[in-house]
Amino acid sequence: MNVLVINAGSSSLKYQFLNVDTREVYAKGNCERIGIDGSFVGHEENGGPKQKLEVALPDHRTAIKHVFEILKAVDAPIDGIGHRVVQGGWYFPESALVTDETLGWVREVAPLAPLHNYAEADVIEICRDMFAQIGNVIVPDTAFHYHMPEHAWRYALPRDVVDTYHVRKYGAHGTSHRFIWRTVHELRGDKTHRLVSCHLGSGASLCAIEDGKCMDTTMGLTPLDGLIMGTRCGTIDPSTVVYLNRVGGYSIDQIDTMMNKESGLLAVSGRSSDSRDIEEGAHVGDEHCQMALEMFYYRTAQLFAEMASSMQGVDTMAFTAGIGENSAEMRQGVADRLAWMGVHLDAQKNAVRSDEPRVISTPDSAITCMVVPTNEEYMIALDVAELLG
Amino acid sequence: MNVLVINAGSSSLKYQFLNVDTREVYAKGNCERIGIDGSFVGHEENGGPKQKLEVALPDHRTAIKHVFEILKAVDAPIDGIGHRVVQGGWYFPESALVTDETLGWVREVAPLAPLHNYAEADVIEICRDMFAQIGNVIVPDTAFHYHMPEHAWRYALPRDVVDTYHVRKYGAHGTSHRFIWRTVHELRGDKTHRLVSCHLGSGASLCAIEDGKCMDTTMGLTPLDGLIMGTRCGTIDPSTVVYLNRVGGYSIDQIDTMMNKESGLLAVSGRSSDSRDIEEGAHVGDEHCQMALEMFYYRTAQLFAEMASSMQGVDTMAFTAGIGENSAEMRQGVADRLAWMGVHLDAQKNAVRSDEPRVISTPDSAITCMVVPTNEEYMIALDVAELLG
Repeated sequence: MNVLVINAGSSSLKYQFLNVDTREVYAKGNCERIGIDGSFVGHEENGGPKQKLEVALPDHRTAIKHVFEILKAVDAPIDGIGHRVVQGGWYFPESALVTDETLGWVREVAPLAPLHNYAEADVIEICRDMFAQIGNVIVPDTAFHYHMPEHAWRYALPRDVVDTYHVRKYGAHGTSHRFIWRTVHELRGDKTHRLVSCHLGSGASLCAIEDGKCMDTTMGLTPLDGLIMGTRCGTIDPSTVVYLNRVGGYSIDQIDTMMNKESGLLAVSGRSSDSRDIEEGAHVGDEHCQMALEMFYYRTAQLFAEMASSMQGVDTMAFTAGIGENSAEMRQGVADRLAWMGVHLDAQKNAVRSDEPRVISTPDSAITCMVVPTNEEYMIALDVAELLG
Repeated sequence: MNVLVINAGSSSLKYQFLNVDTREVYAKGNCERIGIDGSFVGHEENGGPKQKLEVALPDHRTAIKHVFEILKAVDAPIDGIGHRVVQGGWYFPESALVTDETLGWVREVAPLAPLHNYAEADVIEICRDMFAQIGNVIVPDTAFHYHMPEHAWRYALPRDVVDTYHVRKYGAHGTSHRFIWRTVHELRGDKTHRLVSCHLGSGASLCAIEDGKCMDTTMGLTPLDGLIMGTRCGTIDPSTVVYLNRVGGYSIDQIDTMMNKESGLLAVSGRSSDSRDIEEGAHVGDEHCQMALEMFYYRTAQLFAEMASSMQGVDTMAFTAGIGENSAEMRQGVADRLAWMGVHLDAQKNAVRSDEPRVISTPDSAITCMVVPTNEEYMIALDVAELLG
């Protein structure tokens, strides 16, 4: 079965076309600057070079037409389309076929993620209407967290406010965390019961997974919460928003932008949101870069301990995403601050670069540490295959 | 040496008059409803009954005069006055004599705690002016946390914002946490190096203390952050404030009041902010009360693990304040969720009521658990004695 996976943003549209059974990726790319001057498609086919196709993309409909046009070069029919949806809100305990009802849900919960859900809903509708013969599936990034225990998702705010405005912990990166559990379990079977999946990228979250079930996660109502990220501040006293408004005179929109786009590693380092630049800076003695790394390690270790607490223990730790897969130094930095819990990396194994899932801890490490490259597109395609199969 | 300890609020003024050397409390009480109809003084002398004196208290100056008048009945001179100050901000690495400069600091940092610091500064000034012959000392509740490592106090917000508006973690309950460390260390000496002090009252915070030094604490910029409290929500995604303003239409003042006064155990239980009422409700099967307790236990255990992480381990846990000193059930609830870290209470020892500091864990518990009644007034008086002695 061949599945097209679509990840739509307000001015972009990422796609990947793959075979579920062989995992072969036929083609992938990104339509950028949709509705903005200078739009283009970055496209690559299996093994081929990356091409930049400059085309006018006034809207998402045009972008989708282009994607289908480009994919004609791939000699394979599109059997189904999987749509990544950022926020499934209080619906979607799992992925779902696109119907008027489920499409309505994506729009109903959009106030929780307005920058993403509206565009995603539009794209789903366009795909359904343009290619009526192909099945469409919604894969919300929150679905995996839907079943976490109430004591983990509930906020201690007034119940009428919680109920009316659906204020609670939703989490994110659910598709990635689910893939990580699946892969770790395939490899280690019954040796893993309590996993902390560490999705460390420009966005970052931890997830406590006990026997396949999400027990807690570090992102909250929105993907701002939890770890310190590329440009996001992570968990801070919620009164900070009140204080910056009252005393600093910032508007709520300004504070929202500040916390999401101008904070995190970027703000502490004063150099970059990209951890590679910060590692470089730290190596040449830049104290702000060193502090950015120290804070990242410190908070990741603290929240790892929180996740362990939610499961009453942890036997396996898995690093994934940009930082988690590629930075041996940052993995070591986090692990060093978890030595008290029995985390011990094998420095040589940690230094190896590979696309394969692998163990990087010493044999006597109380917690088995792994690197597991994530593959959200494959996970989405699997859901499409299951629902359309 | 005899010290009068004063804890001023916007419409109240608590006092305790004690001897630093013998720890004898001569008298204590509270001026309530200052500036409001129906003001009165609740007063008790050593061993005597509680008296309610109905007197007009139009302002703090009148209240202080009354306190001094009442204390004439105690046959002991006032040798010094210690003023609890909620927020010492970016000044006050320790307690300090009242001078024009230090008094100015209390007012300068008041935007961080406007409901408390302005009234406290006024009361300090009144005491200094009315009784010029008595030394006055400022004891900020944040001073103990002043020295925590930068990676613990810094927020990952833009550096110009952090510097201009002094946005960082300050913590609270510092005087209590300092007293707990002191008492635990007196009793256990070198057997305690890494203590998590658990101040669990209607306000609640944890503090990681390594060899007497604060390494981290759960309250943040303000006392809203961290644990779930009587009426405070504790840590939640800071975006929640943005969302409730945008989508719920609440003003920032309304959200501030909601998070501080209408949330926490009160909101989840729907019954009371007092944990005793909630325990009662839970016993008779009230599911909202059961959830309130479960969330309290869960978050306290998670943040305990965070504090342990900040010290790379923990050997001693001390419960204090209203809940910590008096609720065997809630101590057990927290400890049960830390069994994975090696916390094991002796049920019989835990059930004993006492005013003495005591160990309540089993001999084989990896972490020694204690109940240590706090005594902030004594700690304040000690600081006064040291600075005036």
